[in-house]
Amino acid sequence: MSKTLTNRKDDYAQWYNDIVLKGGLADYSAVKGCMVIKPHGYALWENMRDELDKRFKETGHQNAYFPLFIPKSFLSKEAAHVEGFAKECAVVTHYRLKNDPNGGGVIVDPEAKLEEELIVRPTSETIIWNTYKDWIQSYRDLPLLINQWANVVRWEMRTRLFLRTTEFLWQEGHTAHATKEEAVEETKKMLEVYATFAEEFMAMPVIRGVKTANERFAGAEDTYCIEALMQDGKALQAGTSHFLGQNFAKAFEVTFQDKNNKQEYVWATSWGVSTRLVGALVMAHSDDEGLVLPPKLAPLQVVIVPIFNKDPEAQAKINSIANELISTLKSQNIRVKFDNDDNTRPGWKFAEYELKGVPVRIALGARDIANNIAEVARRDTKEKASVSLDNLAAHVVQLLTDIQNNMFQRALQFRADNTTEVNSWDEFVKVLEEKPGFISAHWDGTTETEEKIKELTKATIRCIPLNNKQEEGKCVLTGKASKERVLFARAY
Amino acid sequence: MSKTLTNRKDDYAQWYNDIVLKGGLADYSAVKGCMVIKPHGYALWENMRDELDKRFKETGHQNAYFPLFIPKSFLSKEAAHVEGFAKECAVVTHYRLKNDPNGGGVIVDPEAKLEEELIVRPTSETIIWNTYKDWIQSYRDLPLLINQWANVVRWEMRTRLFLRTTEFLWQEGHTAHATKEEAVEETKKMLEVYATFAEEFMAMPVIRGVKTANERFAGAEDTYCIEALMQDGKALQAGTSHFLGQNFAKAFEVTFQDKNNKQEYVWATSWGVSTRLVGALVMAHSDDEGLVLPPKLAPLQVVIVPIFNKDPEAQAKINSIANELISTLKSQNIRVKFDNDDNTRPGWKFAEYELKGVPVRIALGARDIANNIAEVARRDTKEKASVSLDNLAAHVVQLLTDIQNNMFQRALQFRADNTTEVNSWDEFVKVLEEKPGFISAHWDGTTETEEKIKELTKATIRCIPLNNKQEEGKCVLTGKASKERVLFARAY
Repeated sequence: MSKTLTNRKDDYAQWYNDIVLKGGLADYSAVKGCMVIKPHGYALWENMRDELDKRFKETGHQNAYFPLFIPKSFLSKEAAHVEGFAKECAVVTHYRLKNDPNGGGVIVDPEAKLEEELIVRPTSETIIWNTYKDWIQSYRDLPLLINQWANVVRWEMRTRLFLRTTEFLWQEGHTAHATKEEAVEETKKMLEVYATFAEEFMAMPVIRGVKTANERFAGAEDTYCIEALMQDGKALQAGTSHFLGQNFAKAFEVTFQDKNNKQEYVWATSWGVSTRLVGALVMAHSDDEGLVLPPKLAPLQVVIVPIFNKDPEAQAKINSIANELISTLKSQNIRVKFDNDDNTRPGWKFAEYELKGVPVRIALGARDIANNIAEVARRDTKEKASVSLDNLAAHVVQLLTDIQNNMFQRALQFRADNTTEVNSWDEFVKVLEEKPGFISAHWDGTTETEEKIKELTKATIRCIPLNNKQEEGKCVLTGKASKERVLFARAY
Repeated sequence: MSKTLTNRKDDYAQWYNDIVLKGGLADYSAVKGCMVIKPHGYALWENMRDELDKRFKETGHQNAYFPLFIPKSFLSKEAAHVEGFAKECAVVTHYRLKNDPNGGGVIVDPEAKLEEELIVRPTSETIIWNTYKDWIQSYRDLPLLINQWANVVRWEMRTRLFLRTTEFLWQEGHTAHATKEEAVEETKKMLEVYATFAEEFMAMPVIRGVKTANERFAGAEDTYCIEALMQDGKALQAGTSHFLGQNFAKAFEVTFQDKNNKQEYVWATSWGVSTRLVGALVMAHSDDEGLVLPPKLAPLQVVIVPIFNKDPEAQAKINSIANELISTLKSQNIRVKFDNDDNTRPGWKFAEYELKGVPVRIALGARDIANNIAEVARRDTKEKASVSLDNLAAHVVQLLTDIQNNMFQRALQFRADNTTEVNSWDEFVKVLEEKPGFISAHWDGTTETEEKIKELTKATIRCIPLNNKQEEGKCVLTGKASKERVLFARAY
């Protein structure tokens, strides 16, 4: 398979597929809509998971695990939820196969039909709140702060690796609280956990906002979100945190005795991010040569490539310098590899590690070493520098920090350059075609207008930013009064 | 809910259920056969996972993720495999629900029937080898050393929390090799990874062995296993490692070009452990007061309980000693908690932490402190000691090591005391009834005899131990010639 990627400007969608497939992140599978996450892609997800998990635990959450299957009737218990989720899902109807009496392998055993069908979880609010009913009796049982790492299934006809797949991996937090205020506070706290993770670890700036009623999670009273801007000017919802009110508590009869001995319904939140983040990471930073990974998430942060030399003494010197450098870097918890495989040439390796997104590459050649230097290349800007061997480890450590910061600043600048305030419908349409990105515009607050704009332009309201500036204006489409701008974009 | 447990001697099975439910490890769910893993149980699994994952990576493996669903036809491709796995499994037949036109919630949409049914994976050999076909072309692509952490489903009619559930969590390693020797070596290497993990981390001694043909994994040429002995004298298979020969390579046409440009079939292994290990951990060590956890796996290793004092000065002194101790222990990566909740009494806390299996409990009271001592209780032996405050942290660190070792030695002694060599059928039956445990006996090597013994006694051949002593003897049942003893037991 050729490692050359389609250029972003020629075909952005194809570039994305190329990079995911050739960069070793994922592969198509024999099951329509499901992907195989390959080792390089899974390592990225593991690093995301470990960092998020740490942050969830630091904010008082515990992990648990709930069943993969949900009885069909559970989905109907919360009215809005069933509308949103009960439609496209995998339905288990039987629990046994048997040998085909006509010899055609195995067939479904008609005798093994389930009394009630089971749904492969598209999300777990229903099964979890049915369980919480047994776990919550008194205010002393609250708050209940639980997270689950799991796979979920939402049947998709049109899929894209990582961005939209029938099965995906995610985490879903489900918390229960004694008061509305506490639940709202939790919803916002977890949004902030996601936002800081995205910015500090993924080097991906996000807008913190709240969804319009139309874009809310099915069953939520408010959906908060983080929205990121991809290099093609499309937005991507990178995480959501829902204030669920008492909807699920009422649907599953979850009450608690408060301090005054009164029975009250419990208040709920749920929040999640998924393997979609891997897709976001690719699209936020990568280039026509391959992946560009932020050092904090890169499975491999530094690679050392020796430039082979037939002189055994020179080769020994290269090895000795490499080994010393590795030991110094490892002692600082830097993920480093010495690629001394002599079946491939340095040029091939350079291209391979560029494709894989390794942040720093060090070339060690005899001539450079004789001059007491090494060539250090950074993946984000592709700049190369000759660095004194005396200072090499310290340089690399600093460089990793610089790359992390530079990637964030570059993405921040990109977002600033591609966020446009518009004040008329003509302008809205023109900007959307000529300079895609976030469009900040007034909107009259109605679902009708929101849907009309979507129908006309495929742009949706990504969110109403938190702490949004209040400003009188007129809706770009209807001219009706508006109190604040909202962010529009076409989106993944 | 009362926290009192059934005694082991009165009803071992009920004791086990009590401890799992009341110790906060797991709960029944609304879906028959599926359990909810509660935070304390999940934390144990996480600690197991993290340690195993480290050991897998140290032995060169990478994680990946394959689809939850397997096309039905895949199961039929390997003849033995389909016999073993295609029977009791969850079958997805439809991909959509719709509103019931008669108003009864949602119903399965008959229009959304899948052309080919999908099976929720009971194990992933088939979907993985179907993928490996695309990943392996040349000897340069080998070995391929991949592991997956996932949920799997095997429909069970009679379930027991952790030990036998319809859905469970596990890891499954799937490796591909150029030669038979390499694959056999990998199979044994991973068995040893499991065995050392079980002994060093779970403090649970295991017999390393190989299964008889009758007990082999469906599709394997050899199944290696680790077998542990529970306190009721029943054996528990704690992990398996399979040499799969070329069976799956042939079923899925996975060949590679070797160094001589010849096309050869690839050699395979697979190996797995599951949340069953949590059940094994409980049954290997716990007692009538609750869980007894080995320090290396205990989510909480040390708890400090203050004995409240109305004198604020004495109380401040307790707090100050506790905080200093915590800071010292944390600096040594010990998981420690100061439980100064004043809503519950020390006696209640003592019972609670005993139930939860916290290895070390420190009580800090004003009178003891005045004498420069603290009371330190170890969970494994329930011994208490007065320890000088000057030496407290060092004492606790050493005690954690001692407890880990003691638990292993105690279990080892228990196994030695409950492994009996027998030389006649009468003896076999008598020992099985009066002193359950491993029975070491001669067997004539036939499946017929093995099944007859199982039918008569419910005892199965757990394994033929590795490096088994070769010794002439006569089969306990048939009197036919035998070259070695094998281990029998009743088993979970």
